[in-house]
Amino acid sequence: MKSFESLALRSDGRRIELLDQTLLPDEECWIEIRDWREMVIAIERLQVRGAPLIGVAAAACLARLAEDGASMTDFLAAASALRKARPTAVNLMNAIDRIVRAVETAGTVVQSVSVFEEIFSEDVLLCERMAKFGQEVISQNAVLLTHCNTGGLATAGLGTALGVIKAAHGLGKSLHVYVDETRPLLQGSRLTTWELQKAGVDFTLICDNMAGFLMSRKKIDAVLVGADRIALNGDFANKIGTYSLAVLCRHHEVPFYVVAPWTTIDPGCASGMEIPIEERGCDEVIGPRGLKSAATWNPAFDVTPHSLVSGWITDRGLYRPKDIANGVLKSEGEMRE
Amino acid sequence: MKSFESLALRSDGRRIELLDQTLLPDEECWIEIRDWREMVIAIERLQVRGAPLIGVAAAACLARLAEDGASMTDFLAAASALRKARPTAVNLMNAIDRIVRAVETAGTVVQSVSVFEEIFSEDVLLCERMAKFGQEVISQNAVLLTHCNTGGLATAGLGTALGVIKAAHGLGKSLHVYVDETRPLLQGSRLTTWELQKAGVDFTLICDNMAGFLMSRKKIDAVLVGADRIALNGDFANKIGTYSLAVLCRHHEVPFYVVAPWTTIDPGCASGMEIPIEERGCDEVIGPRGLKSAATWNPAFDVTPHSLVSGWITDRGLYRPKDIANGVLKSEGEMRE
Repeated sequence: MKSFESLALRSDGRRIELLDQTLLPDEECWIEIRDWREMVIAIERLQVRGAPLIGVAAAACLARLAEDGASMTDFLAAASALRKARPTAVNLMNAIDRIVRAVETAGTVVQSVSVFEEIFSEDVLLCERMAKFGQEVISQNAVLLTHCNTGGLATAGLGTALGVIKAAHGLGKSLHVYVDETRPLLQGSRLTTWELQKAGVDFTLICDNMAGFLMSRKKIDAVLVGADRIALNGDFANKIGTYSLAVLCRHHEVPFYVVAPWTTIDPGCASGMEIPIEERGCDEVIGPRGLKSAATWNPAFDVTPHSLVSGWITDRGLYRPKDIANGVLKSEGEMRE
Repeated sequence: MKSFESLALRSDGRRIELLDQTLLPDEECWIEIRDWREMVIAIERLQVRGAPLIGVAAAACLARLAEDGASMTDFLAAASALRKARPTAVNLMNAIDRIVRAVETAGTVVQSVSVFEEIFSEDVLLCERMAKFGQEVISQNAVLLTHCNTGGLATAGLGTALGVIKAAHGLGKSLHVYVDETRPLLQGSRLTTWELQKAGVDFTLICDNMAGFLMSRKKIDAVLVGADRIALNGDFANKIGTYSLAVLCRHHEVPFYVVAPWTTIDPGCASGMEIPIEERGCDEVIGPRGLKSAATWNPAFDVTPHSLVSGWITDRGLYRPKDIANGVLKSEGEMRE
């Protein structure tokens, strides 16, 4: 396998390493992932996260396994375990399915190496294309709000929603970004702040429950978020809190955009009702300060209906509600096959 | 001064003690407040909090000062400093103004002792009356959502919004309460959970950004919140996040109630636009895990317009939007004088 490097995933052609995202922003610690079991654990623990990146990382892990001489049986068992590591993001499943189809067609697990390399470079390219199409919605002096982390820590490239924002900054647009801290795991306050600071973009960190008040004061020009899975009718799952933002945007007439590559579309999902939502443990919600014995509800994602979305920024273009109503996600989904 | 005891404020007639709310739920630690300067600090640090309770606690402190033989000059200086300890909750200002008027009329600071005793017992009574009027909106088997802490830790009595809920439980209604954790200071996960557990009420703790998704699944029958200041047109300030909840309720057609005693009305505020909003420091938002150098915006409160409110539960009755439009808050405000 060729060497590769992104903000949070790299290899010298042998060792696969992840930037441990649970330790950011205080520590920038790269950890080696020696086999697929360690990758499953790293995905479950969110040491690697972001819908596109977990697909790329799992694919890298399978390519490594193939180069180490795994049998087809062992390879497929590893692929199956990785595929189940997180249930909501469809990029992981799409990447694994694409590799499994390729190795089964070729009759050799080594085929996975070139498919992984395709997936990696394709993810970089998809980010560039989303960043290009997204510029249409980012005006000079825009004040934006984003949720969770959807940047270089969540993809092999520039990012999805945060990629559009960073590209706008790179093009010389003066921006200010409000960053939702994104409870319970604080991807906004830990990761997006770190990434925006590295990129030199002005930002202000807020708690998730402050976004509505900000909008009521007419401070926000647009909200951009990522997606973990998009259904064919345009409904999508994303980090918990996204749906509330979409409702707040509707109430305040603030444009609300979802930014995701075509690999985030699930051709098997007609609507958001069919997207499985991962529920995680109590500790994340209770944290160090809450009542230890509290019962909690902790969905990691929520579903935003297409009716609340102003535009879908994909690597194939910016789609508006009428495009979605015309079935663009279905038709191009079929074209892609 | 007579001895008194509430969930978080007590005295044996000499020593005034506060249950330090910054240490809950892990430690139940009572601290003695020896003079008004310590009370100002305790209010600023939120060791004592809750719009009604800080008014009562400040009044207790002035009564103690009077019994200790303070001069009128020193007494008025202390009153002035206490009045400024937090800018948004009007109960504090109302309580101090009432005491100052009484001592000035009587010509002796000792008059503050009986006024404090009135304020304390009145607050207990106001809670009972809100709890009674609030029952109209709590049905058998109701699933409710609340924000921040508005119970016995926030008043001298049963509470405001949480008082209505606890009273419903006491009347044998089967309830389930979703508790917003209430970032950044986690009054929900630290205090409301603790209080509901003590009261034996079933509850589930959620992050603030999960409330919308919960409503989209039709899980919530009504939302009840408190208030720190109510304007004459029915707009009100309350803990940050309240406004977002009100917008979410409107979108999902969930009834949204504010529960507050008449002492929370500010006859000097025609609308919510005039309510000053306290902004607090960065550390509360950044916390132990966020990027240390992040710029933040940290309003402690937000303003909810009357147009989003289904009902105002006060100690004088449950008012509906048409009552508010008819100026009930103004007319009864005048009657009270």
